[in-house]
Amino acid sequence: MTNQPTPLRVGLLGCGNVGSALVTLVAEQRAEILLRTGLDLEIARIAVRDLSVDRGLDVAPGVFTDDAAALVVDPDIDLVVELIGGIEPARALILSALSAGKPVVTGNKALLADHGAELFTEAEAAEVDLLFEAAVAGGIPLIRPLRESLLGEPIQRVLGIVNGTTNYILTQMTENGASYADALADAQALGYAEADPTADVEGFDAGAKAAIIATIAFGASVTAADVHHEGISGITAADIDYATRHGYVIKLIAVAEQVETEGVTKVAVRVHPALVPTSHPLASVRDSFNAVFIEGGAVGELMLYGRGAGGEPTASAVFGDLIDAASNLRAGTHARFGPLPPADISPIADLRSAYSLTLHVNDEPGVLGKVATTFGENDVSIKSMEQASASEETGNEAQLIFVTHLASERDVRTTLDQLRLLDPVRSVGAVLRVVGS
Amino acid sequence: MTNQPTPLRVGLLGCGNVGSALVTLVAEQRAEILLRTGLDLEIARIAVRDLSVDRGLDVAPGVFTDDAAALVVDPDIDLVVELIGGIEPARALILSALSAGKPVVTGNKALLADHGAELFTEAEAAEVDLLFEAAVAGGIPLIRPLRESLLGEPIQRVLGIVNGTTNYILTQMTENGASYADALADAQALGYAEADPTADVEGFDAGAKAAIIATIAFGASVTAADVHHEGISGITAADIDYATRHGYVIKLIAVAEQVETEGVTKVAVRVHPALVPTSHPLASVRDSFNAVFIEGGAVGELMLYGRGAGGEPTASAVFGDLIDAASNLRAGTHARFGPLPPADISPIADLRSAYSLTLHVNDEPGVLGKVATTFGENDVSIKSMEQASASEETGNEAQLIFVTHLASERDVRTTLDQLRLLDPVRSVGAVLRVVGS
Repeated sequence: MTNQPTPLRVGLLGCGNVGSALVTLVAEQRAEILLRTGLDLEIARIAVRDLSVDRGLDVAPGVFTDDAAALVVDPDIDLVVELIGGIEPARALILSALSAGKPVVTGNKALLADHGAELFTEAEAAEVDLLFEAAVAGGIPLIRPLRESLLGEPIQRVLGIVNGTTNYILTQMTENGASYADALADAQALGYAEADPTADVEGFDAGAKAAIIATIAFGASVTAADVHHEGISGITAADIDYATRHGYVIKLIAVAEQVETEGVTKVAVRVHPALVPTSHPLASVRDSFNAVFIEGGAVGELMLYGRGAGGEPTASAVFGDLIDAASNLRAGTHARFGPLPPADISPIADLRSAYSLTLHVNDEPGVLGKVATTFGENDVSIKSMEQASASEETGNEAQLIFVTHLASERDVRTTLDQLRLLDPVRSVGAVLRVVGS
Repeated sequence: MTNQPTPLRVGLLGCGNVGSALVTLVAEQRAEILLRTGLDLEIARIAVRDLSVDRGLDVAPGVFTDDAAALVVDPDIDLVVELIGGIEPARALILSALSAGKPVVTGNKALLADHGAELFTEAEAAEVDLLFEAAVAGGIPLIRPLRESLLGEPIQRVLGIVNGTTNYILTQMTENGASYADALADAQALGYAEADPTADVEGFDAGAKAAIIATIAFGASVTAADVHHEGISGITAADIDYATRHGYVIKLIAVAEQVETEGVTKVAVRVHPALVPTSHPLASVRDSFNAVFIEGGAVGELMLYGRGAGGEPTASAVFGDLIDAASNLRAGTHARFGPLPPADISPIADLRSAYSLTLHVNDEPGVLGKVATTFGENDVSIKSMEQASASEETGNEAQLIFVTHLASERDVRTTLDQLRLLDPVRSVGAVLRVVGS
């Protein structure tokens, strides 16, 4: 007779791509995990909206339920995994599970970015784990290294490619010369982009992830509303061509950094398309891959690279958290999370950066003088300028691309506002910040 | 009156580059860590061999001692950090600390690779932590992600660039056309390579790290003696040139993988120079950087990249472990490590791989026929062949470079043994396995 431990009963909320992959992974690895850890994990209940859907899973009858609210307080359930997504009912269900003393594993970035502080406080009060490795960068171990391995590290800056859809689109534009519209259609056909791609291409998704990264890296609460975000829908083939010829790639970069403003340490968090030098490790992150680049005072440069989305990679991250939460539950402990005061956010106007700015102007004498004078009057110093040849095809429109020395965002915005009012300036094109050089 | 926690007193063994950087890092971050975790960490004693050396540290008198054996059993010491390196006295001191109930953090790869199972068993018996993030890949969070985040992941293969010295040398040869001798001298001048570079360039250092990686990834004990290793001292400018022209870079790669041999799952671990396609993420790991590429059944491809050596990056890894061990000590728990049965090692002769093989032959009619016949008789199928033009300068020596289809190591070795006996074959040059394609 072997001494079998009592199974730990997991309640799963939601059974889409990630949930189904988790059920399969737990079944495959259950014996191995029992051998290695002494923990016997069982997916005991699965709450879904529609019981009539056949999910093709090898699950005993009676495991599925449509009563999620009952599941999270069921005394027979030891741990809860939330994979519903969105704010409600996920928020209420997690709070209910935590206050019933059940550790919770979630992959819900939107919820954590908006209500993280409330959830962490509840988990601390209930003295149980709230783990969320899957919420940022899918299968890449990021949150645990930041929370644990690098807890003692003076982290200065985190740069991330944390949205696979936009990275796929930009890679197609860069390597195959695709237009933005064609690359987006391609991403939609492959299932990388939604029918309404706004959340991805306008930087909302990356912004929520940047808020979570900043919160963990700097130990102060940052919400999605604190994150300045710009998307990639305005990037043109000409912008890509310019970047390529000058040794850059264009990437949608999430930046979280500590900045000193008049002796006060603040947190700056933003998402925007950026020029990244081809020699930077982030430049070689292609297709739908994600990567997070960390700059620390002691550790130097680190990069964590992998699949940021997809059912199986995300389920892998959830499973890692689940084993950890189960182990802590058995040991009667939980991962501690220090107090999370609201971060002192540095406004985007205070940013200092180098910029690349594209202007569409009438090809006529004196234009460059007027434009350059406007830059100078606003303390924006020009490092280089390139003019694309005008032609009758373009209605005698010339394209001027300026790269600035380090300048303040406030001054650059004032400059652009004034340039838009200049007669020969037809429009302002891409505004790209240079990152990682 | 604030309620200050009792400091946790750390005993440090060894105060070289890493130890000094740790003392500085703990001093700088002590207040921040107290705020975030409630843990007050103090380096209370430092054992060194020579008390007369001024290490330039801001440390109170009486902190230094030359009695390491007394330090590790001192009831006033709560945790021990071992940074002496080597087998003895490090092994005896760690065993002594563990059996005195003190958690130990170490960066000692040689010791873990040779005596890991003994140390882990003692830590389990004493119910305290034995943490060693710094032992492999310096500042890169690798051991914790493998032990925790990826514990549920069916890991198939780990490929690592885990020796910065050899990666620096190969990068110099590839990018600047340096000879091996010049690149090695350069590495020595920069302090990347020792006066006697054998441990690095012949793959011993990477082999010890590969043993630790395999042990953690597959949950079975692998020692340095189980690791087949080859070095880079035989790599020539001609080999680099061939690789570059065919879309590869040459890297010293540590491989740890699970293989099925006649229905039995075994562990294969080896270190050797390899041809890596330039499109593979490991190909862009330059200079003295390290990276570990993980292939998992669910998570897909992951890569962890950063500084694999150096005082500050290594101290960062030690500090992360120290905070974790302190947190566990306060919570009355410790990181568990499942049973570690000895791994069933797959011998190198059972490897199946594609190879690139260089032969130096007399430039005379019929040579290729004889050589090709020898390959064929041994079931080694040739995918491509390239002949470098012979000249009188080379004494009419021609260089033939063959790339094979997948072949068994056993057959390739037999082939090479027979080729060496052929009259027109002067010598066998580089034998490179293709990895990551």
